[in-house]
Amino acid sequence: MKTMEDTGTMFGQIDPPQRLLMGPGPVNVHPRVLRAMTADMLGQFDPEMTGYMNQTMALYRQVFMTENRWTFLVDGTARAGIEAALVSLVEPGARLLILRAGRFGLLLSEIAQRIGAEIRTIDIPWGEVAPPEQIEAAIIEHRPQVFATIHGDTSTTMAQPLDGVGAICRRHGVLSYVDATATLGGMAVATDAWGVDVVTGGLQKCMGGPPGSAPITISDRAAAHIMARRHVEAGIRGADAQDGSRTRIGSNYFDLAMIMEYWSEKRLNHHTEATSMLYAAREAARIMVEEGLEARFARHRAASEAMAAGLRAMGLTLYGQDAYRMANVTGVFIPDGVDGERARTRMREEFEIEIGTAFGPLAGRIWRIGAMGYNAMKHKVLITLGALEAVLAAEGHALPRGAGVDAARASYEAMPGAAPGAAS
Amino acid sequence: MKTMEDTGTMFGQIDPPQRLLMGPGPVNVHPRVLRAMTADMLGQFDPEMTGYMNQTMALYRQVFMTENRWTFLVDGTARAGIEAALVSLVEPGARLLILRAGRFGLLLSEIAQRIGAEIRTIDIPWGEVAPPEQIEAAIIEHRPQVFATIHGDTSTTMAQPLDGVGAICRRHGVLSYVDATATLGGMAVATDAWGVDVVTGGLQKCMGGPPGSAPITISDRAAAHIMARRHVEAGIRGADAQDGSRTRIGSNYFDLAMIMEYWSEKRLNHHTEATSMLYAAREAARIMVEEGLEARFARHRAASEAMAAGLRAMGLTLYGQDAYRMANVTGVFIPDGVDGERARTRMREEFEIEIGTAFGPLAGRIWRIGAMGYNAMKHKVLITLGALEAVLAAEGHALPRGAGVDAARASYEAMPGAAPGAAS
Repeated sequence: MKTMEDTGTMFGQIDPPQRLLMGPGPVNVHPRVLRAMTADMLGQFDPEMTGYMNQTMALYRQVFMTENRWTFLVDGTARAGIEAALVSLVEPGARLLILRAGRFGLLLSEIAQRIGAEIRTIDIPWGEVAPPEQIEAAIIEHRPQVFATIHGDTSTTMAQPLDGVGAICRRHGVLSYVDATATLGGMAVATDAWGVDVVTGGLQKCMGGPPGSAPITISDRAAAHIMARRHVEAGIRGADAQDGSRTRIGSNYFDLAMIMEYWSEKRLNHHTEATSMLYAAREAARIMVEEGLEARFARHRAASEAMAAGLRAMGLTLYGQDAYRMANVTGVFIPDGVDGERARTRMREEFEIEIGTAFGPLAGRIWRIGAMGYNAMKHKVLITLGALEAVLAAEGHALPRGAGVDAARASYEAMPGAAPGAAS
Repeated sequence: MKTMEDTGTMFGQIDPPQRLLMGPGPVNVHPRVLRAMTADMLGQFDPEMTGYMNQTMALYRQVFMTENRWTFLVDGTARAGIEAALVSLVEPGARLLILRAGRFGLLLSEIAQRIGAEIRTIDIPWGEVAPPEQIEAAIIEHRPQVFATIHGDTSTTMAQPLDGVGAICRRHGVLSYVDATATLGGMAVATDAWGVDVVTGGLQKCMGGPPGSAPITISDRAAAHIMARRHVEAGIRGADAQDGSRTRIGSNYFDLAMIMEYWSEKRLNHHTEATSMLYAAREAARIMVEEGLEARFARHRAASEAMAAGLRAMGLTLYGQDAYRMANVTGVFIPDGVDGERARTRMREEFEIEIGTAFGPLAGRIWRIGAMGYNAMKHKVLITLGALEAVLAAEGHALPRGAGVDAARASYEAMPGAAPGAAS
């Protein structure tokens, strides 16, 4: 055996700079969530562990504003939740209609291609949203098995309105899927009111947690569809195992039928639940429920409005349509003559503040400035605006000094009863 | 909007019982790993974050005893690493030869079926291992694209010897995959010495970390095979994007070609790295490298031998062949007349100690008692044996009182220079 002393490389303790993350996520994690992760493990079928799992289900029903029994966690990042939803809902060869208005809409097709879905799309320009009539017309034209969309696409900072979309899908016998990674915990993700079937999220944006766990909720009718695709693993199947009639799900890890049985009273073994991430997800939801959903959404709106007011007062131009702006990340055009990446580096190196770059057609054209979760707070908005002003001035861009911070303060003061800090 | 005050359900802080987890995993996490997870987030392309990613790669090269450039983490539990390896290596319709000697061998076929692989198997009785000649004969007979096996299958507590297996595969132009989830950090997982192509693991067993991150290492020839299946995502592809010539990988999340580009200097965006789990994985590896691999493997062997000696001195019969026993989990027959689950419950309720149940043909016949990672320590072995003795006596099973603990102590004392506690 090779001894490692020869090649041994050692590094110091984890000690990241204390940086304010005002990009599109991940953002700073609520200290209570970080502390929750220091709790030690439990056996995965211990009553205490399954109790925590059940509590997590109850908490995420509140987060997703739903009564769906099947509300739990997929063990992976937000993208894992998206793939689990699509691979479990959409059968190979079945038609999937995707509303694409940004990078994450493209991601849905990317994932669906691998599944072998027959893909139809509603493609709208980045920065715009689709009215319900356009969605219904496309459903009538394409007759898909599943309709899929992004709620808030951080690549464009726009939020697709979803009121009435579930009803349209049900009227036409179509299952619906919504990716709410970037909005969950910051804007109303009104699963039951929208009437949509499957919604997934992440922790690392408005939930104020770390990336690595994907909350999901599934309606009863979607669960019935998924359970019709179930096949019990050979290694654990009993004599009473019953397989479903539909095409088997093309992934074991993302087989939501099996994951539901793991989270059900049956506790059929599947993966080993990511215990620390479960603790984090549970604590993030506890903080949200304690704060109250409406207060939390108002806090995000207040931060977003103040950020927008401040950026405009600095003479900058916001990207996209005001009416459909996400309440937690703001796109702003990089002023002419300013090198966007140089300014971002200066923000990081001089102020220890991160703001976001952009993808695809918006790369080099806009910055994306977030105020999400634990960072949707007055002082963090003010500090970010003040730093951005100084950086733009240092980069030779003329702008009225002090105007951004003052406008953001005024925006907060104009909000009746707005909480100045975090939770009410 | 529905107000949550009506239905609000609240639960208390995470506060698990301080339980000693002496089953087949997850086990208690090293306190340093838990503390590492309290560090706050970094932007995913911050130099500090990519620096930690590079350090993690260097550390896991030591853990996997390899010089493979491609050594990194898959964001999900150990099962996610298995699926990423198989879906990225095995093309639909290609032949996969699986050595099956327990539940996790069955899991490999389960996953491979979903991929559409043409599966061939070497099936050997649970509790046995396959000699290299048997593996070579099956490779010659079936001519697979990939050969896959489990190193230590916790369902049987046996470790498959892998010396020479990589050379056999290379001689016949076959790629090789090893699942080392249950042995990584506890027994030598000698990637380069074995000459195998892809090895995956988990944190929650001998690495002394929480479940939720799957370390992986990939040889250059396997990486070339996987990169020939790459296709760049539409949302981030530049004008210079080049797609490979082989069948596209059937999963986006588990597309190792894309994950490699994320971990490479290119830093092509894929998922958002699970930062807290990266911190945990990095700290677990740091502890292992500090302890020294040989010392760590000796610590696991010492705990395992003492556990075996203690169980035998109590009059119990071990399961499986001594020569091929894993050095971190021991199977022991439940004595006649004892209800295995009642005894396990009593262990948990009276002593706060968990020992493991069993799957499939071994369910109700054996317990599986682990001494893994932070729990492969003398005092934990002694405490577990003492508790098991008391529980068996309480359940009416006659046995020599004190014999188990004394035999385990003697086993430790007989080991020249054996460290009494944890790290040397």
